[in-house]
Amino acid sequence: MTVADILAARARIAPQVRRSFAAPSEALSVRVGAPVWLTHEHQQITGAFKLRGATNAVARLPAGTPGVVTASTGNHGRALAHAARARGLRAVVCLSHLVPENKRAAVRALGAEVRVIGHSQDDAQAEAARLAAEAGLALIPPFDHPDVIAGQGTLGLEMAEDVPDAAAVLIPLSGGGLFAGVATAMKALNPGIRAIGVSMRRGAAMAASLRAGHPVAVTEAPTLADSLGGGIGLDNRHTLDAVRALIDDVILLSEAEIAAGIRHLYHHERQIVEGGGAVGVAALLAGRITVRGPVLVPLTGANIDMALHARIIAGHDAHASPEDIPENTPEQETIPPCPPSAS
Amino acid sequence: MTVADILAARARIAPQVRRSFAAPSEALSVRVGAPVWLTHEHQQITGAFKLRGATNAVARLPAGTPGVVTASTGNHGRALAHAARARGLRAVVCLSHLVPENKRAAVRALGAEVRVIGHSQDDAQAEAARLAAEAGLALIPPFDHPDVIAGQGTLGLEMAEDVPDAAAVLIPLSGGGLFAGVATAMKALNPGIRAIGVSMRRGAAMAASLRAGHPVAVTEAPTLADSLGGGIGLDNRHTLDAVRALIDDVILLSEAEIAAGIRHLYHHERQIVEGGGAVGVAALLAGRITVRGPVLVPLTGANIDMALHARIIAGHDAHASPEDIPENTPEQETIPPCPPSAS
Repeated sequence: MTVADILAARARIAPQVRRSFAAPSEALSVRVGAPVWLTHEHQQITGAFKLRGATNAVARLPAGTPGVVTASTGNHGRALAHAARARGLRAVVCLSHLVPENKRAAVRALGAEVRVIGHSQDDAQAEAARLAAEAGLALIPPFDHPDVIAGQGTLGLEMAEDVPDAAAVLIPLSGGGLFAGVATAMKALNPGIRAIGVSMRRGAAMAASLRAGHPVAVTEAPTLADSLGGGIGLDNRHTLDAVRALIDDVILLSEAEIAAGIRHLYHHERQIVEGGGAVGVAALLAGRITVRGPVLVPLTGANIDMALHARIIAGHDAHASPEDIPENTPEQETIPPCPPSAS
Repeated sequence: MTVADILAARARIAPQVRRSFAAPSEALSVRVGAPVWLTHEHQQITGAFKLRGATNAVARLPAGTPGVVTASTGNHGRALAHAARARGLRAVVCLSHLVPENKRAAVRALGAEVRVIGHSQDDAQAEAARLAAEAGLALIPPFDHPDVIAGQGTLGLEMAEDVPDAAAVLIPLSGGGLFAGVATAMKALNPGIRAIGVSMRRGAAMAASLRAGHPVAVTEAPTLADSLGGGIGLDNRHTLDAVRALIDDVILLSEAEIAAGIRHLYHHERQIVEGGGAVGVAALLAGRITVRGPVLVPLTGANIDMALHARIIAGHDAHASPEDIPENTPEQETIPPCPPSAS
C-alpha cells in the first residue's frame, strides 16, 4: 500500500463520493491551545467514510463479476450495498438470526439481498464465504483488503490537502482499514504528522493486537462507539502490519468520554456524529493528547440511533444516563495505551 | 439581474465559499410521493448562505475602499465580517443598546468592530449610513443590493446543476435576496421549475408587500424563523420587483409547523437547521404543496440557539413547549398566501 494506490483510488471513486471539507473549531481550538480542524465526513453518502473503500473495491472487480457479498450489517454493509447498486451489481448481505428485522429492512432498502442464517456473526461470515465460492460473488471484507484500505485512504489525501501543516491527526481505530489508508496518505504528503489511533476501552481489538504483536480476540461489549467494535480477524493479513508501521500513539476512551464528545459536537459544533466518529473530539476534550500544532479530527460517521443521541445530548454533565453508558469494568479500565511503534 | 451576473459572482467567490450538495431524503420522498432533495447549505462557512452575497459584494468593491459597514447582527453581519476579514478590510457592525452583549462579542470574534448606538435598529442603521458617508465605508445591506442578490444566486446554480429536472424549489422568503438570486439562476437553467417562497406567518414582510403591491411595514413578532424577520425596506429598490417577477407561490407557516420541520431534520435527516432554514421542509411536512416531480429544498442556515434546539427536538408531538413557540394571533393566522404572480 502506497500513496500511489490511494491516488489511483481517488481517481476511480471521485464521481461516486462526496469530497470532505475541513472546518475550524473555535471551541476546541481555544480548549487545546492549537488550531483544531474538524473534517466533515459524517455527511458522506450512506452516512460514513465506508463508502470510499466499498466503492473502490467494487470498481476494481474484474468485468463479469456477478456480484458482491459481505456479512456486515453496519456502515460497511450499507456502503457496499450502495456501491454495488451504483454499478448495477448484485449485493448479498449475510446476517444471523440475531440481527433485528429493522436492520434487515434497512439493508434491503439499499437494494441488497439479505440472507438470514445461523445464530452468530461467524455463521453469517461462513455463509458469505460459501456464497463467494459457490456463486462466484466477490467477498468484500470491511477492512482487511488492499482496495478497501486504499479507498479509505482517499479521506487522508483530502485532509492533507486541506490542512497541509497539521501536526497530528486523530483517527478512529477499529479494524485498521481507515487508519492504515489515512495514515499512509497523510504521512506521504506530510511526513512529520503524528498519526494517533483512538478507540473505546472496551473491546479495542486492534490496540490489544498491537500490544500482543499478533491478532487477538477480544470480548465485545456494548459501547457508544459500536461501529468500532468487532475483531480484526485472527487471520489478519494487511491492517495489523500496516497500522503497526504507521501508528504513533493509541488513546482508549471511556464511555463517558465518548458521550462527552457526542455532546460537544451537538452543542458547540452543531453536528450529529455517531460514537465511533466522535472519538477524536472526545480524546481532545478528555485532555488525552498534547498538541504542538494544528490538529485534524475527521468526523467519520453519523449513523447513531437518534433516540440514543437525544438521550445523550440531554445529559447535563459529563455523564449520560446509566442505561446508555455501561460502566467500564476495572479490568477494561486498566488497558494502557500502546507504546509508540518503533518499526 | 441575469444569470450572467450570477455566473460572474460564482467565478468571483468560488475560492471563499463551500459548494453545497444535494442529498436525497428517503423519509420526505416517501411522505410527499416524489423525490425530495435537501441541499446542504447550512454547513456553509459562518453557518448560512449569507456568505455568498457578502463575499461577492466585498469582492466587487473598488480598490482603495477602506472598509465595509452594516447594521445586521444576524447571519448577514457574521457573513460580512468574515468576508471583509478574508480580504483584509475593516468591517464595522452598528448595533443598538438592545443587542445583548453575547451577540456583540460574537461579532467581535469575527474580527469586526462593534459600534453600539441608540435604542433601535433604525438608530443603528442611521449610524451605519453616517459611517458610510463620513468614513467612506461601503454600506453593504443584507439583501437589497445587486451584488448581494447575485452572490446568493450562486446557490441556485448549484441546485440546478445537481437536480436539473426539479419541478419545484422551496426557497426561504425574507428580504428577497436569496429568493431573487436563486430563482433567477434556476429558472434560467430550468425554465419550467416552480419557485415557491416560504416564510413564517408572523411578520412576513415580503408576502405582505407582494399583496399590497408596494413595500409595507409589518409588526415584527417572535418567531422560530428569526432570520427571516425584519422589513424589506420602505425604499426597496431591487428585491420586491425581482421577487414579484419570479415567484409562483407563497406558503406561510405557523410556529408549530416550523418546529416540526426542525424536529424532522434532526430525527430523520440528522441535520441541525435553524428555523429560517427549515421552512421548506416544514412546508412539505405540513402538506402545503402539491408536487408533480422532484422537489429541491435548500437548508440555508444552522445558527439556532442550541438550548432552544434541544427543547424543540425533545417535543413528543407536533408542538414544542409554549414558551418556545408563541401562538399566532388570529389576525396573523388569516394572512392568505399570495396569488401566483402574473408579471
